[in-house]
Amino acid sequence: MKNTVDMEKLVSLCKRRGIIFQSSEIYGGMNGCWDFGPVGCELKRKVKDLWWKDVVQHHDNVVGMDASIIMHPRIWEASGHVANFKDVMVDCKECKRRYRIDHVEGDCCPECGGEFTEPRDFNLMFKTYVGAVADDASVAYLRPETAQAIFAQFLTVLNSSRQRVPFGIAQIGKSFRNEITPRNFIFRSREFEQMELEFFVEPGTDEDWNNYWVERRIKWYHKIGIKPERLRIRPHEKDELAHYAKSCVDIEYEFPFGWQELEGIANRSDFDLSQHQEFSGKKMNYRDPITGKDFIPWVIETSAGVDRIVLTVLADAYEEQFLAEDDTRVVLHLAPCVAPVQVAIFPLFKKPQLQEVAKKIEENLRKHALTSYDEIGSIGKRYRRQDEIGTPFCVTVDYETLEDNAVTIRFRDSMEQERISLDRIVSFISEQLDF
Amino acid sequence: MKNTVDMEKLVSLCKRRGIIFQSSEIYGGMNGCWDFGPVGCELKRKVKDLWWKDVVQHHDNVVGMDASIIMHPRIWEASGHVANFKDVMVDCKECKRRYRIDHVEGDCCPECGGEFTEPRDFNLMFKTYVGAVADDASVAYLRPETAQAIFAQFLTVLNSSRQRVPFGIAQIGKSFRNEITPRNFIFRSREFEQMELEFFVEPGTDEDWNNYWVERRIKWYHKIGIKPERLRIRPHEKDELAHYAKSCVDIEYEFPFGWQELEGIANRSDFDLSQHQEFSGKKMNYRDPITGKDFIPWVIETSAGVDRIVLTVLADAYEEQFLAEDDTRVVLHLAPCVAPVQVAIFPLFKKPQLQEVAKKIEENLRKHALTSYDEIGSIGKRYRRQDEIGTPFCVTVDYETLEDNAVTIRFRDSMEQERISLDRIVSFISEQLDF
Repeated sequence: MKNTVDMEKLVSLCKRRGIIFQSSEIYGGMNGCWDFGPVGCELKRKVKDLWWKDVVQHHDNVVGMDASIIMHPRIWEASGHVANFKDVMVDCKECKRRYRIDHVEGDCCPECGGEFTEPRDFNLMFKTYVGAVADDASVAYLRPETAQAIFAQFLTVLNSSRQRVPFGIAQIGKSFRNEITPRNFIFRSREFEQMELEFFVEPGTDEDWNNYWVERRIKWYHKIGIKPERLRIRPHEKDELAHYAKSCVDIEYEFPFGWQELEGIANRSDFDLSQHQEFSGKKMNYRDPITGKDFIPWVIETSAGVDRIVLTVLADAYEEQFLAEDDTRVVLHLAPCVAPVQVAIFPLFKKPQLQEVAKKIEENLRKHALTSYDEIGSIGKRYRRQDEIGTPFCVTVDYETLEDNAVTIRFRDSMEQERISLDRIVSFISEQLDF
Repeated sequence: MKNTVDMEKLVSLCKRRGIIFQSSEIYGGMNGCWDFGPVGCELKRKVKDLWWKDVVQHHDNVVGMDASIIMHPRIWEASGHVANFKDVMVDCKECKRRYRIDHVEGDCCPECGGEFTEPRDFNLMFKTYVGAVADDASVAYLRPETAQAIFAQFLTVLNSSRQRVPFGIAQIGKSFRNEITPRNFIFRSREFEQMELEFFVEPGTDEDWNNYWVERRIKWYHKIGIKPERLRIRPHEKDELAHYAKSCVDIEYEFPFGWQELEGIANRSDFDLSQHQEFSGKKMNYRDPITGKDFIPWVIETSAGVDRIVLTVLADAYEEQFLAEDDTRVVLHLAPCVAPVQVAIFPLFKKPQLQEVAKKIEENLRKHALTSYDEIGSIGKRYRRQDEIGTPFCVTVDYETLEDNAVTIRFRDSMEQERISLDRIVSFISEQLDF
């Protein structure tokens, strides 16, 4: 099933229903930065939460950390980012426009035909100064990835967490890249959030762990509801590999704008820990307390973008459904575990007896699910509003409820309705949300 | 009960047990930035999660958002941060040392006695450049607070969320201030995380809503276990008030280093929305769809620091307990809802039959609580390790378990033990964690 979602319609739904807004919109916007609205930020919270559950909390041998965005500049020398993390740019000598060299064809400006300057390097890290004086000694960068903080704290975490290799350190947090051409909505932005796991293993066991994590991550995408036929694994060719990587596979998704990387899973060998050992002068070897083996661990990294996954979830779930002539609905077929509203509760009419029961139901459900209460407009309109933000279950309280202690539950995808007794509702909903 | 915790001991516990580390430690550290280790990041996640639950999810009239850290620079002109968010500095003409003027007494350098330069302003925002050219047109700042993003998106959120005034927009996220003198561990740092609510009300109802939020926030501190006698409310004097604030109260906590602000609750009048209306040219008035009233909403703000609250939770819970001669334990009396490990499960011995049952119990509990499995060392040592990170419940599987289907549950604070049947354990623990 090819992904034929119209990106413009999706972007417009995101704006209209409080999913994603342009940053600083009233001031003309901030290119490459995005804000998540009420619905979008709950969706993003869910994506992060389900990743954390699966990668950290469900693995005895994975622990979390949460490092600062501003770190010591030597970290970026050790990692190679100061020297190598750059795009090559050219300027047009006539109109002064600036281009990434890999984004222009030919030798002259596509706008005015002017001649280009010599290519020059442009580092993608955002630079700032820490302390009272803005000089070379106070330069700092906004991290372009969360991974290096994990490598830099490898020993501290190891010594405090009572883990033995193989074990992993995971982190979720903002990263920043001064992209010259942010594009495709939230797919490539200047400020974004990463979910990274660095898994430390004994050399020789790296291939097996690499396979374990590829498989585990693919399963996670299935669990959060992404259509398997729109996911693929693409191993990197030898000539695409970063110099430190022994191997790398991308998990790709078929976006409306083509197959694109969602996540990279790389065998980084002992490159990172060795670099930090050299630059910091601190020993990075691990000595196993039981086997006595002594080595610098190899690292399997899985690195995913939160924003990209939110876009994937939305693009994968979006449908304009033609129900009958002149009757179309927009619906997000989100998996219940990831939906920003999981149950909506309606009184059929704005009458105190019904409102009271409906509010009581919402209160009971709140501990188990993300809920919303709505009493405005016809029941049909209320269903459609929930369809648009992907609410899987709607519960309606009517006059019969007062007699039979049951409510109508309506299912988003099938649009079918079922009567369910009030004392079963919490357990029914909880089961549906199981992850 | 005065807080007499020894800060050095607390900082050392934080390092040793994976709660909080100095950022970039292997490179000599990054002053004013901190990393949260495996235990600390779960604690921080809990604090944020319980705030979000209480402020956003338990209020029908509060929605969330999650904005970018880099925003349009005009936002900081409208808010007054470009003009006013600064410290006054002096340099020593002899030794070139730099000081905040409010941190030095007298007219000469406390180090060398040299003469000072004229005082000059030093803006506390971190500056960077976005795009390919570093010039005035591309200046951007790291946000010094999350609040302004909410004001700038007030209309977009209002129009997409179907809320009516009174309603609130809440946000959790990183903020940055280039403090010249970060201090008191994570109390005042350069990179920190905020939890802010901007609650929009009709003028005239502001006092009532202000009181509502002060009371609600105090209750929250009680619910996460902070000792009420170490909390106080301090209304600002007229001469301390920011020029835009009609009133402000601080919630203060008695740290080992004295009473300090945890959270400010301010009546900001219509200052912020009016400023953004003026600077952006976009109308910020609200017209009620039912009453037809038309006004620029007033704002009640509650603004709390995540890191400060984590420090509060730790300092409030820390105790060195003298149990008997030569028998001391370090224990964190954390409320169960906030503990980074809520249940630890041990097999009494490293025997397959016991390990299997213990692991099965952990698996069942994982969906309901933060769990940890430990089979290393004597049972007494394992209890003490859990005491140090504040685990409220330890569950031990012994040979009797195989016959009576019951386990020993040990309570951190009382150190008492109780036998509990296996089929009651999930519901027992879940009840204890209720928030």
